[in-house]
Amino acid sequence: MNNLLVAQSGGPTTAINATLVGVLKGARISDKVDKVFGAKNGIEGAINDNLIDLNELLKDTEALDTLTYTPSSALGSCRYKMKDWREDDEPYKKIIDTFIKHEIKYFIYIGGNDSMDTVNKLAEYCKMNNHDFYIMGAPKTVDNDLNLTDHSPGFGSAAKYIATTISEIERDISVYDIPAVTIVEIMGRNAGWLTAASALARVNGGPGPDLIYLCEKDFDNDKFIQDIKDKLAVKPGVLVTISEGIKYSDGSYVSDSISSGAVDNFGHKYIAGSAKALEQLVRNEIGCKVRAIELNLMQRAAAHIASETDIIESQMLGQKAFDCVVNGVTGKMAAIHRLGDNPYQVEFTAVDVSQVANHEKTVPTDWITPEGNDVTEEMMTYLRPLIMGEVNIKYENGIPKQLRLY
Amino acid sequence: MNNLLVAQSGGPTTAINATLVGVLKGARISDKVDKVFGAKNGIEGAINDNLIDLNELLKDTEALDTLTYTPSSALGSCRYKMKDWREDDEPYKKIIDTFIKHEIKYFIYIGGNDSMDTVNKLAEYCKMNNHDFYIMGAPKTVDNDLNLTDHSPGFGSAAKYIATTISEIERDISVYDIPAVTIVEIMGRNAGWLTAASALARVNGGPGPDLIYLCEKDFDNDKFIQDIKDKLAVKPGVLVTISEGIKYSDGSYVSDSISSGAVDNFGHKYIAGSAKALEQLVRNEIGCKVRAIELNLMQRAAAHIASETDIIESQMLGQKAFDCVVNGVTGKMAAIHRLGDNPYQVEFTAVDVSQVANHEKTVPTDWITPEGNDVTEEMMTYLRPLIMGEVNIKYENGIPKQLRLY
Repeated sequence: MNNLLVAQSGGPTTAINATLVGVLKGARISDKVDKVFGAKNGIEGAINDNLIDLNELLKDTEALDTLTYTPSSALGSCRYKMKDWREDDEPYKKIIDTFIKHEIKYFIYIGGNDSMDTVNKLAEYCKMNNHDFYIMGAPKTVDNDLNLTDHSPGFGSAAKYIATTISEIERDISVYDIPAVTIVEIMGRNAGWLTAASALARVNGGPGPDLIYLCEKDFDNDKFIQDIKDKLAVKPGVLVTISEGIKYSDGSYVSDSISSGAVDNFGHKYIAGSAKALEQLVRNEIGCKVRAIELNLMQRAAAHIASETDIIESQMLGQKAFDCVVNGVTGKMAAIHRLGDNPYQVEFTAVDVSQVANHEKTVPTDWITPEGNDVTEEMMTYLRPLIMGEVNIKYENGIPKQLRLY
Repeated sequence: MNNLLVAQSGGPTTAINATLVGVLKGARISDKVDKVFGAKNGIEGAINDNLIDLNELLKDTEALDTLTYTPSSALGSCRYKMKDWREDDEPYKKIIDTFIKHEIKYFIYIGGNDSMDTVNKLAEYCKMNNHDFYIMGAPKTVDNDLNLTDHSPGFGSAAKYIATTISEIERDISVYDIPAVTIVEIMGRNAGWLTAASALARVNGGPGPDLIYLCEKDFDNDKFIQDIKDKLAVKPGVLVTISEGIKYSDGSYVSDSISSGAVDNFGHKYIAGSAKALEQLVRNEIGCKVRAIELNLMQRAAAHIASETDIIESQMLGQKAFDCVVNGVTGKMAAIHRLGDNPYQVEFTAVDVSQVANHEKTVPTDWITPEGNDVTEEMMTYLRPLIMGEVNIKYENGIPKQLRLY
């Protein structure tokens, strides 16, 4: 038997199940795969032989459609960091045991930088040990910070949510004629792509954010306060968007004063509260009404306003990863190569996963205005196509239908 | 000439422009009104003779449709508190001057409890002084705390956003198998209706929130920690929803430790951060991963996921207020009377505004479970119809179309 295993990892997104569905749809029409399993909680499911049989799901078109529009990782996720096999080969051996036990020949791992690190290590381990297994990565990350792909699945939907939400918040804060500052904190530890997407609130002529600060440029309190004063001089309601990971020139985080100091399993510093810190700064320095808003989990979970472009591409990347892996490709990641902006055209490729793993693609600084408080037209040209199109969400009893696998 | 003035006040909602459109549609087909004006920034526009001519808009069906689905108050808003005219009749005189100058006979004020106080005082003032003006209120408030109406326009849409968002957040937090607590803070200073709506995330069989705490019941830290421990014993990801205004039995707010102490123009205490306070409590008492989320302005501005039932009713309340005022009714508020739950049926009435002004309709305590950490089936029966139906939002360039009046 030539069976296939698929798993999801890292922070969930709106589109990661669409990629899973792409893999499943590939398997459904292929004669190269017999059975399909899902590993529960990412690579941990492969290590611990905790698999979900997906063969019934494969045949159920309606369930696959519902799964496509269900946010988050239906197979669960993990933040498990694989050590180098020369240091500790125990988990690698256990994965191979699982593969052998279930006659799994192909493995597709859907995730971000850290997951691609797993794909890279596992593919290398199999090669070094002459194991006849094929390992492919499929990208996902709302942060859009993956190397070698024009953009990442999940980003376009998060960008659409952010653009829409910022346009709605702009309407909300514009009703009073007293000075007020609203600071919206958007995900992005080291990459400001999602914060940049707040500029898309302007695509229909609305004002959108008055000021945009990405984490790629050093943040300066005095400059920030002066920028706000300049805006308040011409309008009462000032709307600011910032990346969660904005830093001062000395490298310290704006949020540091209220950071918990905790770190996650990958050693990432836990950051929350840049907007809250700046709220306090504005209150102290300007004294007007000020409100901090965090878009929090909603920006990566709001499947009800997913981008059609994102969902279609996410599914096609799953199919691409499937096509590659069953044709003997290993140690690669399915990726998007943009052919043109207008008309927007892309092709799907397979890129070397070792160049994706542990890299972060940040915003080019020349896509940020010289003043450091907005994005350029190049950024808008890049972003515009990614939020196009609306998905046909099915509602039941007033809320979107979802599919749960366990 | 018999002209009509309309204004919007208080915190914006997703449905307040639908009520404005209802007034305008009433005016369009009526022979009782010549011209229609909007007062900018609520009653302040009437006091300061700051009016917007709405007669062109009246004829533009497409613009009215776009306005219906545009969130927030298109005419602006205010938090102006009218003093009793026996104390200070200056603003009253100025309003009457504006009425006379623009030959305004009818005034419709769309707003919440405080706005109904203005309607009440102004209608009384006109009666006492034998002025031949007619003043009607049309309800609006996401909080659903208005007296004498089954529910308030704006609430159903906010409830639909909350139910959908909680179902999406539930998916997001369910992916890891490590203990984690997510606490979502929902609007509601003294009324827990919106927090109760988080239970609607369960309507399709999903788990929704594990624990729900409304501000109508005294909050107890020890009980809360025990409730969470009990849930963590059976599942890793625990989802909690709380009202922003939860209080301890001594009347102090849970958020007090991080409240700014500021008050708004109505003397309402500025409350923010109940979830943040409880995040810290869980971190200290349980020590697991914990995250606070505030639905913030998004819950009252998310027009892209408005409830069709809410939008239709909001528009019909505008028409009802119009029909009343041009037929000589004054000092009343258009209201919804529920005739049945299943099938859901309502009728529109006019209620005495003096009994609406400065009252708050809170959640009946017998609609909260005896344990104080969930809502009852009666609450679900009440809530279910209010989020039914989806609106046909028009998108342009990837985000919803909006209409700006100024």
